[in-house]
Amino acid sequence: MSNVRMRREMGDKIDLGAKVPSYPMPVVLVGANVKGKANFLAVAWFTVAAHTPPKVAVALNKAHYTNQGVKENKTFSICIPSEEMIEATDYCGLFSGSKTDKSRVFDVFYGKLKTAPMITKCPVNLECSLDKVIDNGSNEMFIGDIVSTYTEKKYLTDEAVDIRKAKPFLLSLNDRQYFALGEPEAKAWSAGKNYKP
Amino acid sequence: MSNVRMRREMGDKIDLGAKVPSYPMPVVLVGANVKGKANFLAVAWFTVAAHTPPKVAVALNKAHYTNQGVKENKTFSICIPSEEMIEATDYCGLFSGSKTDKSRVFDVFYGKLKTAPMITKCPVNLECSLDKVIDNGSNEMFIGDIVSTYTEKKYLTDEAVDIRKAKPFLLSLNDRQYFALGEPEAKAWSAGKNYKP
Repeated sequence: MSNVRMRREMGDKIDLGAKVPSYPMPVVLVGANVKGKANFLAVAWFTVAAHTPPKVAVALNKAHYTNQGVKENKTFSICIPSEEMIEATDYCGLFSGSKTDKSRVFDVFYGKLKTAPMITKCPVNLECSLDKVIDNGSNEMFIGDIVSTYTEKKYLTDEAVDIRKAKPFLLSLNDRQYFALGEPEAKAWSAGKNYKP
Repeated sequence: MSNVRMRREMGDKIDLGAKVPSYPMPVVLVGANVKGKANFLAVAWFTVAAHTPPKVAVALNKAHYTNQGVKENKTFSICIPSEEMIEATDYCGLFSGSKTDKSRVFDVFYGKLKTAPMITKCPVNLECSLDKVIDNGSNEMFIGDIVSTYTEKKYLTDEAVDIRKAKPFLLSLNDRQYFALGEPEAKAWSAGKNYKP
């Protein structure tokens, strides 16, 4: 590839360097018992890690209080809050469990693992067993096996969680703004069937 | 904790079991050169993995054609498409590079790593150097160091990428639907300042 062709194809591109990207990040609360008390941390670096067995991954700064509890108990939860819980969620991102007792912010329940606190008010709670801890520098990634998914009938459509009923919200990092989910745009695994490149 | 208290606190909760969750998943295209040709795969299991150094993580089913190229070159890209690219993105999720040549679906450019193809039309492209491969069962997670972030001036506000200009979109797994980003709801690291639990 010649440099001329490369320049042309790069068009108006500018290189911002090695930076954490901004995109719509799903906001979740990571629950862990720390020193015997329920604690919750607001997090946006979360994803599914595998389909079979079902696993999730969450990248937490090593300085967080929550990490101690995950390692101690080998369990944690992923609690997906709804729009109406924005203030309480943001509170759990602003104040560390090392100085603020967050065990009474929410009504809490426990599932079969006994040590992964979950938030009754959250439309969806994933109860997780710790599988791996990956060292990524400033952050450690906790990969967990989902052992149970707790929800309520009112959030279901056709026996599956309906995100239009659960109303999760998103974080944009660059403008430090929470966003609502928008409107459906197209069917996945369908909209591109007749696309002609 | 007594069983009585536990039942009460669980309220109307039902356990759906060990399942991959549905939440608003950011849709990205993973770019890799496979057998010398640019290939792109639509993916929604993507997250930031670390702040310092900046890293991303993406969980790909082991059967995907793209994985071969990531391992061969030790490079890949994360290309964040805009709403107007939904059909082309979905096309890249429907058809495997093993049977369909996707090297001409988009105008492509390369950066300093030389082997991580990126999509000119995408508002944001992350050029990544492979750091680790994590085996998670059906999926392998590629963790990459971000070496460059390519965008265009028209997507910036205050010198940072503005997602209201880039217009990324989201996937809901359970209803197989792409969603637009909605409206800003509240300021992050602020809305919870005066929250009283």
